[in-house]
Amino acid sequence: MIARWDPLTIGIDIGGTKVLGGVVDSWGRILDRQRRLTPGQSVSEVENTIVEMVLSLAADHDIAAVGIGAAGFVDASRSSVLFSPHLAWRDTPLRDALRGRIRLPIVVDNDANAAALAECYFGAGRGHRLVLCITLGTGIGGALVIDKRVYRGANGMAGEFGHMQVVPGGHRCSCGNRGCWEQYASGNALVREARELVVGNSPVAHRLREIVRGNPDELTGPLVTQAARDGDQLSVELLADIGAWLGTGLAGMTAAFDPDCIVVGGGVSEAGELLLAPTRAAFSQTLTGRGHRVEPTIVAAALGADAGFVGAAQMARSAARRSRRVRGRRRRRFLATNARGSLLE
Amino acid sequence: MIARWDPLTIGIDIGGTKVLGGVVDSWGRILDRQRRLTPGQSVSEVENTIVEMVLSLAADHDIAAVGIGAAGFVDASRSSVLFSPHLAWRDTPLRDALRGRIRLPIVVDNDANAAALAECYFGAGRGHRLVLCITLGTGIGGALVIDKRVYRGANGMAGEFGHMQVVPGGHRCSCGNRGCWEQYASGNALVREARELVVGNSPVAHRLREIVRGNPDELTGPLVTQAARDGDQLSVELLADIGAWLGTGLAGMTAAFDPDCIVVGGGVSEAGELLLAPTRAAFSQTLTGRGHRVEPTIVAAALGADAGFVGAAQMARSAARRSRRVRGRRRRRFLATNARGSLLE
Repeated sequence: MIARWDPLTIGIDIGGTKVLGGVVDSWGRILDRQRRLTPGQSVSEVENTIVEMVLSLAADHDIAAVGIGAAGFVDASRSSVLFSPHLAWRDTPLRDALRGRIRLPIVVDNDANAAALAECYFGAGRGHRLVLCITLGTGIGGALVIDKRVYRGANGMAGEFGHMQVVPGGHRCSCGNRGCWEQYASGNALVREARELVVGNSPVAHRLREIVRGNPDELTGPLVTQAARDGDQLSVELLADIGAWLGTGLAGMTAAFDPDCIVVGGGVSEAGELLLAPTRAAFSQTLTGRGHRVEPTIVAAALGADAGFVGAAQMARSAARRSRRVRGRRRRRFLATNARGSLLE
Repeated sequence: MIARWDPLTIGIDIGGTKVLGGVVDSWGRILDRQRRLTPGQSVSEVENTIVEMVLSLAADHDIAAVGIGAAGFVDASRSSVLFSPHLAWRDTPLRDALRGRIRLPIVVDNDANAAALAECYFGAGRGHRLVLCITLGTGIGGALVIDKRVYRGANGMAGEFGHMQVVPGGHRCSCGNRGCWEQYASGNALVREARELVVGNSPVAHRLREIVRGNPDELTGPLVTQAARDGDQLSVELLADIGAWLGTGLAGMTAAFDPDCIVVGGGVSEAGELLLAPTRAAFSQTLTGRGHRVEPTIVAAALGADAGFVGAAQMARSAARRSRRVRGRRRRRFLATNARGSLLE
């Protein structure tokens, strides 16, 4: 058997507030890393930051390709960012813009896709063939990963799980609809509920009101989670509510997708078992066919904030390997090989 | 280029009331067909019926393989029926039982998977790479077909779309849960709503009460559909309600799966535009990201009751081709080649 080509790659994860990057090997080990604040919303400044980070990381390592995970919709050819809710990208041909400045093959993808892939290669989803990754942050992001390839959908728009309606006529969602899942199971939902009780001077919110010194605007998800850890009963219950909505929704997702593992990541998942125990309870109570089927395990994500850039680096490695297989002339072939819109990966 | 091996295959579709079978070529043309009533619930009688139909169909044609679509859960190796709601199969090794009697390679799959595949090869989903097939009968069945392969999930249980919860604490479902989608968008839901109004002597149900001569137990989905076609306003509205629930649910499915085509089949879909126009309206009003994305087309299934056996025949052809590619000795290799549990197909 011929030894597999095993290059180092760089992953860059561009979020609304910070840019994380690193050199990653094929075992998922981070050999070098960098972190910067996202420089405002300007497209060119973000590009400058990417270029600086890549050139700096590449100076000390032999790098084969660069993967970029971006918080936004990425087109099917994985070169342009169509729209970003947090950054100024609008139909931005990010890959072409960077190509002249970084003399390495580049692949661009959605940051949640990248993070999901990292969990499946190196994290909590390792060893499972069909993994549903859920990211609980302000909303619900996620991806379905089939045999280590991200399910992308016909137009690269798959995975918007948070916008499935779970309550007809329910809470208004910023997407324009009502009753979206992420209005019930997310950091925003947690804070909304807590805030409502603090604003209403509910006696059960005594401790939370103390924590924010009477100012409900200061409430955040991490504060509620910390209060729950410190034994505040209301905060425990609020997290359990989120978990119940999460578990019921995951049961529906399992009826549809039948994954063998569900990885829950994102900020809210840092509540650990305070979230996951009620999630599993609701899941087991509402999964159709329960008792007559194999149930997926529900586990917390393992890679934390590194998942995005580690996954982006892995995408770059896979793309580089594919183009190498097609023809030895790696760089010239890279774009052609990876530009076909694929339904998976 | 070498001409593709283009064999004839037999497909058999075993439903709760009838068994349909036929000889099908690789263009989806039906060269011969048979239809029998399902002989009670006895496993051996059903097997006898299958054997008789296959031997009879095979007598006049050169057949390469047999595909069987069964109303039930089929295991990942596509040889056993784990459970059937309408027939006596419980962990029945159907393929092995038939193998001694039919000297042809056999593949077994779920009937909804088979029907979905047929629509994608030869019917309404033709030409689309990512098709969501929804079967509206007493409940909601379906399958996601990716590049002409059925998405099966980790344990072959995927596609139970009807048991995603859409109304917390809603109507009781026979699966044990409440608020399942199929309690709102299905033939059963249509009949339940119509019956309620007839039983309650609602003035709006005047015409339906006439049709069933005051006996609400005689109400059926086809009767309501016919009444709608004949201009009964209530029946039109009841179908529109079903369509609204269907469209809203499909918008959620599209947020998650991003298909490029949605095929709606099953008995209720025979209402045509009386169902599909309200479905499309609700879909367009609730699809997240509407206006900024490519929307899938929503179309009626094209193959009707033939879809099941045509799809089963196609599965048999694909399996036969795969095993032929692996080695020329077709029959001996067939089982080994097709017994790996695959996530797709």
